Amino acid sequence: MSLVDFDASVCRLHSATALPLAAGYLWNPRMMIHMTARGFATAQFMQPEPAKYARAQILEAKHFMLPEQGTYAHHPGRFFYIKNRDNNAVFSAPYEPVRKSVEKFEFRFTPRDISWEIYEDGLCITLTLNLPADAPCELWEMRIRNTTGQIRRLSLYPAFPLGLMSWMNQSGRFDADLNGIIADCVTPYQKVADYFKNKDLKDKVFLLSEETPVAYETRQARFEGEGGLHAPDGLSGDRLGNGEALYENPICALQFDHDLAAGSEVTHRFLFGPAFDHDEIARMKSTFLSPSGFEKARTGYAEYIAKGRGKINVDFKDSHLSAFVNSWLPRQVYYHGDTNRLSTDPQTRNFLQDAMGSVYVRPQTARAVLLKALSQQELSGAMPDGITLYDGAELKYINQVPHTDHCVWLALLLESYLDETDDYAVLDVAVLNTATGESLNVRDRISKANQWLIKAVDHRGLNLIEQGDWNDPMNMVGWKGRGVSAWLSLATAHSLRLWSRILSQDGHDGSAFAAASSAFNTSVNTHLWDGDWYGRGITDDDVVFGVKADVEGRIYLNPQSFAFLSGAADDDKKSRMIKAVSEQLETPYGVEMIGPAYTHMREDVGRLTQKFPGVAENGSVYNHAAIFYIYSLYQVGEADKAFELLRKMLSGPVEEDLLRRGQLPAFVPNYYRGAHRQLPQASGRSSHLFNTGTASWLYRSIIEGLMGLKGCREGLRIEPQLPSGWSGAKAVRLFRDAEFRVDIRRDPSLERIQVACNGKPLNDTVVRGITAGNIYEISVDVP
Amino acid sequence: MSLVDFDASVCRLHSATALPLAAGYLWNPRMMIHMTARGFATAQFMQPEPAKYARAQILEAKHFMLPEQGTYAHHPGRFFYIKNRDNNAVFSAPYEPVRKSVEKFEFRFTPRDISWEIYEDGLCITLTLNLPADAPCELWEMRIRNTTGQIRRLSLYPAFPLGLMSWMNQSGRFDADLNGIIADCVTPYQKVADYFKNKDLKDKVFLLSEETPVAYETRQARFEGEGGLHAPDGLSGDRLGNGEALYENPICALQFDHDLAAGSEVTHRFLFGPAFDHDEIARMKSTFLSPSGFEKARTGYAEYIAKGRGKINVDFKDSHLSAFVNSWLPRQVYYHGDTNRLSTDPQTRNFLQDAMGSVYVRPQTARAVLLKALSQQELSGAMPDGITLYDGAELKYINQVPHTDHCVWLALLLESYLDETDDYAVLDVAVLNTATGESLNVRDRISKANQWLIKAVDHRGLNLIEQGDWNDPMNMVGWKGRGVSAWLSLATAHSLRLWSRILSQDGHDGSAFAAASSAFNTSVNTHLWDGDWYGRGITDDDVVFGVKADVEGRIYLNPQSFAFLSGAADDDKKSRMIKAVSEQLETPYGVEMIGPAYTHMREDVGRLTQKFPGVAENGSVYNHAAIFYIYSLYQVGEADKAFELLRKMLSGPVEEDLLRRGQLPAFVPNYYRGAHRQLPQASGRSSHLFNTGTASWLYRSIIEGLMGLKGCREGLRIEPQLPSGWSGAKAVRLFRDAEFRVDIRRDPSLERIQVACNGKPLNDTVVRGITAGNIYEISVDVP
Repeated sequence: MSLVDFDASVCRLHSATALPLAAGYLWNPRMMIHMTARGFATAQFMQPEPAKYARAQILEAKHFMLPEQGTYAHHPGRFFYIKNRDNNAVFSAPYEPVRKSVEKFEFRFTPRDISWEIYEDGLCITLTLNLPADAPCELWEMRIRNTTGQIRRLSLYPAFPLGLMSWMNQSGRFDADLNGIIADCVTPYQKVADYFKNKDLKDKVFLLSEETPVAYETRQARFEGEGGLHAPDGLSGDRLGNGEALYENPICALQFDHDLAAGSEVTHRFLFGPAFDHDEIARMKSTFLSPSGFEKARTGYAEYIAKGRGKINVDFKDSHLSAFVNSWLPRQVYYHGDTNRLSTDPQTRNFLQDAMGSVYVRPQTARAVLLKALSQQELSGAMPDGITLYDGAELKYINQVPHTDHCVWLALLLESYLDETDDYAVLDVAVLNTATGESLNVRDRISKANQWLIKAVDHRGLNLIEQGDWNDPMNMVGWKGRGVSAWLSLATAHSLRLWSRILSQDGHDGSAFAAASSAFNTSVNTHLWDGDWYGRGITDDDVVFGVKADVEGRIYLNPQSFAFLSGAADDDKKSRMIKAVSEQLETPYGVEMIGPAYTHMREDVGRLTQKFPGVAENGSVYNHAAIFYIYSLYQVGEADKAFELLRKMLSGPVEEDLLRRGQLPAFVPNYYRGAHRQLPQASGRSSHLFNTGTASWLYRSIIEGLMGLKGCREGLRIEPQLPSGWSGAKAVRLFRDAEFRVDIRRDPSLERIQVACNGKPLNDTVVRGITAGNIYEISVDVP
Repeated sequence: MSLVDFDASVCRLHSATALPLAAGYLWNPRMMIHMTARGFATAQFMQPEPAKYARAQILEAKHFMLPEQGTYAHHPGRFFYIKNRDNNAVFSAPYEPVRKSVEKFEFRFTPRDISWEIYEDGLCITLTLNLPADAPCELWEMRIRNTTGQIRRLSLYPAFPLGLMSWMNQSGRFDADLNGIIADCVTPYQKVADYFKNKDLKDKVFLLSEETPVAYETRQARFEGEGGLHAPDGLSGDRLGNGEALYENPICALQFDHDLAAGSEVTHRFLFGPAFDHDEIARMKSTFLSPSGFEKARTGYAEYIAKGRGKINVDFKDSHLSAFVNSWLPRQVYYHGDTNRLSTDPQTRNFLQDAMGSVYVRPQTARAVLLKALSQQELSGAMPDGITLYDGAELKYINQVPHTDHCVWLALLLESYLDETDDYAVLDVAVLNTATGESLNVRDRISKANQWLIKAVDHRGLNLIEQGDWNDPMNMVGWKGRGVSAWLSLATAHSLRLWSRILSQDGHDGSAFAAASSAFNTSVNTHLWDGDWYGRGITDDDVVFGVKADVEGRIYLNPQSFAFLSGAADDDKKSRMIKAVSEQLETPYGVEMIGPAYTHMREDVGRLTQKFPGVAENGSVYNHAAIFYIYSLYQVGEADKAFELLRKMLSGPVEEDLLRRGQLPAFVPNYYRGAHRQLPQASGRSSHLFNTGTASWLYRSIIEGLMGLKGCREGLRIEPQLPSGWSGAKAVRLFRDAEFRVDIRRDPSLERIQVACNGKPLNDTVVRGITAGNIYEISVDVP
């Protein structure tokens, strides 16, 4: 049996221990849960700010998700203890906290649910987690089947620790009416104003059961006793202690006793989540806590997920890659676009790039994002660091640090949106910023944003970086006001070029933007070309960095990628750059963002250089940067290199690679550990974070790059860039409400691509006059 | 054997499990460690803001200490695993994380160190923790003696988890030069300005060993494996894995192998703490890590602690109380005065009241505190909410909420200071506030503060409360600007009366303050007397609360206490009040602060009412409030009631009480759980917080109340108030550099107290003309 089985409908993991942090994630617009195969869970819901309902045992800092976050015995989790009442042997499903090595363990992550099948001690346990489509709660179903020929006397104890809910007020008790444990707390605060902010928060947590338990415990410390979570004293007696948690960390522990006849099965259903009051819990109970309630929720969630179906279905020999492209990647793209990463103030660049993914999944979302973002454009034309999603939302964390790249992403998003939808009408939509009172149409706003970029330059015509560009922690290159960014200047050039094209295609004059784009390219070529690659920028003190003279941070990936996109690099430069990247940044796990990683603070570069070598921006295989490079390689026709690096975004399929990365192939993480040449013992490890700008660009690279199925004003352009080793590929592409059945075959005798539509050869590679609802049979012969 | 043995030199606990949170604390001016008997530790050091060097396994919120903070498997701790290499059996000292029930367990908390003696598996383990007098590091000594007649083959593994040091950068490695593990991190931040704040922080943590280990492990997850902290996989092999933690939560685990001959002993010494760089670690090593270094540190620390010796030594029949008064209470008072609770912005009221304790321990500290606090007085005469202790310190947490009581504490501190020292010269010291530029002498500043109180009143002449008085979370009584506080008005009356007396004794006219004091008393009697006790205040909407009409929060303790102090209450009122308090607030664990505790939010009282019933300000036996009451009872001659409640501040001596409170009698905690009439199953539990304004008032109540040995301008006034059941008591009182050997005997035939000094009867109760260095034999006969 392989360690991991993976197809479009399910990712199976056959070990609880081989990939200790392996996890799946489910979400709906109200919540997200990151569930490890072992049974630990990180979940949050929106009210409207993100909040937790199961917490750590201590006061946890509010923070964004942490990369490579480890687990520990008391990590929040969903634990189901099973005791054999004949011999008092205990194991727990899924695996934590007893950690018994069971006879058979299978973790199943599907696009719609997470489940386990476990065989142990003559029992078959099936455990399933579902979310409803639009409520913050978890639906747990557990089936226990007696696979033996004898009666089995069992106790089952679901035990969900709630942690330190609040230092002001926390408690837990069994509610016989609701048939479950209700914990309560007061979100801690000190200022009067916060009372009014907090008073409508969902401060209660419930675990409701369909069956009435024979006993319960709500006191975490009593449940554990001296035995600890892995061998709780609470399980040693006949019955849990029926205790009430009075200003103690609560746990939701229930006990059910079964005498299970040979071959028979019992099913439990539980509901777990946050609520405001008793009434809300009662409503949740009546809606969900029944066989039909669970069934309805499952159907509803399947419908919700189906709305995020992507626009392509491929058929590659590489079945893992096909599964990922057809199912898991659009799911990840949909997650980003539909939830904004469960943030209420997404960084503007994330907001816009995640929407670029929505273009291929839910174009109406992309359109709404564009309008929302523009409605917060400043009078100067600048875009703010974050987009606040509700009245009263605040710019937090990194959004309080000024970055200069946010205007760049508008034209990039728009290009993909217009190519896919041909909705040029959006350019004439008026957008009012209620804060400034300014109303401009989309076209004028994006022109203004690009004009802002044109002006935000130094005497060399290079873009000022202030406290960061796309690279957040590169915060001290230009904090004194003089430092510039080569990457940003190239990104501006790219944006300007795209914008000028869009304007032309819309019948407007874009020549000034095109000219400005060239000027940026010229400035970068003049000041930043280092002989074999582009430098990353010039500091406040006029020091060029990211160049050969540097021992650390010698080469940065992003300027190379965007020099391809912007047209700055000629063919000679291009081959030198690709060679340099290959020699200095490529690894078995993808292409690194910086090399060598910094090992100590460089005060004229900034916080980036203080991150651990090979982690995140400091030289990891930062997939967002890697996919920029891959996308740019497709733009300049480097199909083989592009695909080679693209394939490395996915863990597996070989076991060694899965073990190394530690992650299932069902999502692309924001990074794999880099610094491969400096710390090879750690390279390849996944961050396990599924929030990443990578997803949208990866989907776009596959659709428009690898498969070459890109829209244009006339219709669908078909110019695949299969790797040279592939003899062909098939795909079904949904485009402008028509279906394109594409069959690509390699014919080395050809000079150029030949496309036939419904058996009729085309003069070029564009299918024109597309009719919604039609099916087009496309055959493509590639050289 | 009793569960707890307690005397002035040591507190012994003979169980690792009976009092799961029982702990001792050590500190020096640079750090504090709260060490549980089981081996968990909460420690912080100042740089200058409080920081941790051993952390939780997740990102922990920065916060003040939490009451009743539970522990959990991965709570930071200092663990020493011992493996029998003949049978691979493992236990750990002190107790966590293996939790083996050992043959003999003794935890010893002395004023100078914390140690354990453990017998198990034929071994005697002696483990001792010392701090140096002025460096932030822990000195651990471990002796292992083979008590059997055979050779014993052992492995010893000290294992100190460091937790999640930083999401930016964390690592750990063995340093052969330093002979120990050095972990490193970058304190996480996002804003450029914080880089400059952080760059000199001690971001390294070291565990150095005197002996060279045979192996080590720095990766927490690898050390644990699937076994968990209680049975780490790392111990299952011959050798730890010698791993380097690369952006992983680090642990400092070392391995030593011993073949211990029958009856022989081996000693290890370890140094654990934070540091800035390698050089600093090397300096620490050369200073401390040797037999002589440890010895020197112990001597130095003993000298440091000796500086905090108190001013009285009593000899009661109640040996626990004597031990507490003679040793542990002045130690706790000293801790407060010398460290300001390891805060850099102590609340002004805490700063001043803690200094009131210093009066009896280190009067020069009290004087410095007075001058420091006054140097931050505002131009209006108001005192700020907190006193910043260094340039750049900021008012944080609760100090950002406006409270109106801070001026009250100046005269109270000064009274005790002058009575003890007769240092009236301090009143003429000029104090410059560099922020306002105002320079005034102490006398004028305190007059100005009292004048501010006189003016901060409503139309009834009652003090406005704004967002709180002494009672921090009573934040919505007056947040709209109209609500008033009966307690504060009485405290003002008390302050004014004291201040007028001090002025008179200093030859100035205090009559205006005396008159104002009477006016406050009159206003309170007019508007807040509720028939049997005083109400607590009047809300913004003119609702009197803390009165019979209330179902919850019917009676508050503080107004009663301060009505005694201020002279507002006549004899009739007094007896009604004492009866009401007795009936509604007294419990087996002391007197509650509010009764009944609130069970739901009262929006015109505030956050207090949202705290859990019986916890902290919401109706616990909040010892700070309880000691106000006790002190006030001594002021009005209620000796029996005062002592009855005072004795309840201390846990024990009976085992049932110790188990109930869960705390050793070596310090007074900030509260014991109250709401005794509502939730009796939880009442009595200690908060385990040793930071409390109780300590200073308790010491003062014992010296000046119970023992009646209070200074005055003329000398020492001797008016003991022994409880009626006592036939006598002895004490040695140090006062103005003279020694008073006081022998109190009960003589029921007497009408009034008779005092003899060196055998000569006095006309009154005052010993005059005290000569420094002299010894006075005082005999006291009390009716």
